[in-house]
Amino acid sequence: MMNDWDICFFTDDGRALRVLDQTLLPEQERFIELRSSEAVAEAISRLRVRGAPLIGIAAAMGLCVALTNGEDFDEAKRRIVSARPTAVNLSWALNRMEAAYSEIKKSSSHTPIEKLREEALLIKQEDAKTCYRIGQFGSQLIKDGMGILTHCNAGHLATGHYGTALAPIYAAAEAGRRFRVYADETRPLLQGARLTAYELTRNNIDTTLICDNMAASLMAQHKIDMVFVGCDRVAANGDTANKIGTLAVAVLAKHFGIPFYVCGPLSSFDNQCKTGADIVIEERGGEEITSLHYLKPMAPSGVHTFNPSFDVTPHELITGYITEQGINKN
Amino acid sequence: MMNDWDICFFTDDGRALRVLDQTLLPEQERFIELRSSEAVAEAISRLRVRGAPLIGIAAAMGLCVALTNGEDFDEAKRRIVSARPTAVNLSWALNRMEAAYSEIKKSSSHTPIEKLREEALLIKQEDAKTCYRIGQFGSQLIKDGMGILTHCNAGHLATGHYGTALAPIYAAAEAGRRFRVYADETRPLLQGARLTAYELTRNNIDTTLICDNMAASLMAQHKIDMVFVGCDRVAANGDTANKIGTLAVAVLAKHFGIPFYVCGPLSSFDNQCKTGADIVIEERGGEEITSLHYLKPMAPSGVHTFNPSFDVTPHELITGYITEQGINKN
Repeated sequence: MMNDWDICFFTDDGRALRVLDQTLLPEQERFIELRSSEAVAEAISRLRVRGAPLIGIAAAMGLCVALTNGEDFDEAKRRIVSARPTAVNLSWALNRMEAAYSEIKKSSSHTPIEKLREEALLIKQEDAKTCYRIGQFGSQLIKDGMGILTHCNAGHLATGHYGTALAPIYAAAEAGRRFRVYADETRPLLQGARLTAYELTRNNIDTTLICDNMAASLMAQHKIDMVFVGCDRVAANGDTANKIGTLAVAVLAKHFGIPFYVCGPLSSFDNQCKTGADIVIEERGGEEITSLHYLKPMAPSGVHTFNPSFDVTPHELITGYITEQGINKN
Repeated sequence: MMNDWDICFFTDDGRALRVLDQTLLPEQERFIELRSSEAVAEAISRLRVRGAPLIGIAAAMGLCVALTNGEDFDEAKRRIVSARPTAVNLSWALNRMEAAYSEIKKSSSHTPIEKLREEALLIKQEDAKTCYRIGQFGSQLIKDGMGILTHCNAGHLATGHYGTALAPIYAAAEAGRRFRVYADETRPLLQGARLTAYELTRNNIDTTLICDNMAASLMAQHKIDMVFVGCDRVAANGDTANKIGTLAVAVLAKHFGIPFYVCGPLSSFDNQCKTGADIVIEERGGEEITSLHYLKPMAPSGVHTFNPSFDVTPHELITGYITEQGINKN
């Protein structure tokens, strides 16, 4: 069911990394070629390549391309690692490449660049396996008829293959189970609308796109049975950094008694961070909120939508009412 | 401080209602003229005129225009009342006009249309007074240095004058208090970005625009001290229907121990509805989610933004972690 669609690979001559430019989805499936550490860093910081695991893969493979084209190891690594601060996979993958580079330099029997390229491809393969296993474990939780909520995109487009949060969904679909996925659109950059809705409908998963502020309404109507999200970094105590809005979904899930699962590879777990307070949170430009980078259409055709104009707040959640007669507390 | 800006009034000959077309904000301040019940219904259903109290005012005044131009009372009323199902003010205002019409018909001493116009203007004046009083009561809650969150637009643009949820804010500003307002952008139609941020900055209130999914992050950082929202209909038990996303804000406010106030006139309280389950919720077209009606700019220049890319979910909110080693429950 899950199609084979490689979105990050070396060109035949090894001088460029070809990646899908995700900022152009869902309108265009266009690949771009990255030939320097600068181009790799730009692609990561501009979210052409995004998703914690895929960032790690692209960083490792991009480093190889930079070296092939004559760049200095340390300088290329420094440039790429600074592209985004929150995802731990970026530094994890580059540190692993650095360790491999040290080993290779000790033994003179191999061409360094070939061995490094093998190491980068190994990171990619391992990630695909990891995603597959996350899918196998997680899919056991998914029963026929369930409604599953996910936030942002932690799917094929974020990883080597099956995704993390979407891996259980793909695995359950392959096992023949029937269920519905609700995708938060995920403002400001609409990764849910542009990417998750895109890849799920492309793989024939029943998908309904909602605005972020509509999930509570679905939960109140008992339409959500489970939440799966990815993670950019998990602290030693389990605190998890993930796309803005994940915290809100978690609070809502707790309030409505809905299981909330974080899906991610061990490389996202950072024991150097004791708690979430130690995780650096990236702040991005305000123009992402005030103007849309992506004009219409913002979502693939064929995706369902759920679009009530209002929701109902039960009185026990309301502190009081202010009218011309004063304040009435509940 | 709060400027006088009439956004809904009769033309001099009484044959048209001039209203600000709110779908064009923040780019253009353009007024349109409504000359029939059909035009009034269209303006309400397309959200050119919106906000529960303003809908009631425009409906009553629009009915007068329809009658002036020769329409039948019952037919004009029927057409306007069906424009939007959730706001109770719409039917409340039209029923009040109908009662006035019956009274007028009994006494032959007056020209019916003039008396009806007086009644409609009375509804508008009373609403302005009501808003003013909501502002006086609510502003007592606002202290220097507070951060106040609001959702959607329940301000000047939604009412006869001060607004409901924004009335305490305007009143506190007039009293010289200094505080910061955070405005949820309020997807899908961005009333927070286009309208609330617009009218607040127009009145020199310190305003920061956020995406709906960012409020939890602000609350976790202790930047929100109080929430004010409007209401479209309040049931007898206090359950409140308001713009989609209000429920999520209420759940978050409860979780973070932040007072959450609903602001609205008594005309929004519907004792015919026992609980929120009895309130009809309008569902709107999916294209509001999949494509933006309003291209950039979506917010006024000068508004602040708060735009972290991630948030931190504390471990106690996470049911478990799925990795290649299985599922670890917290």
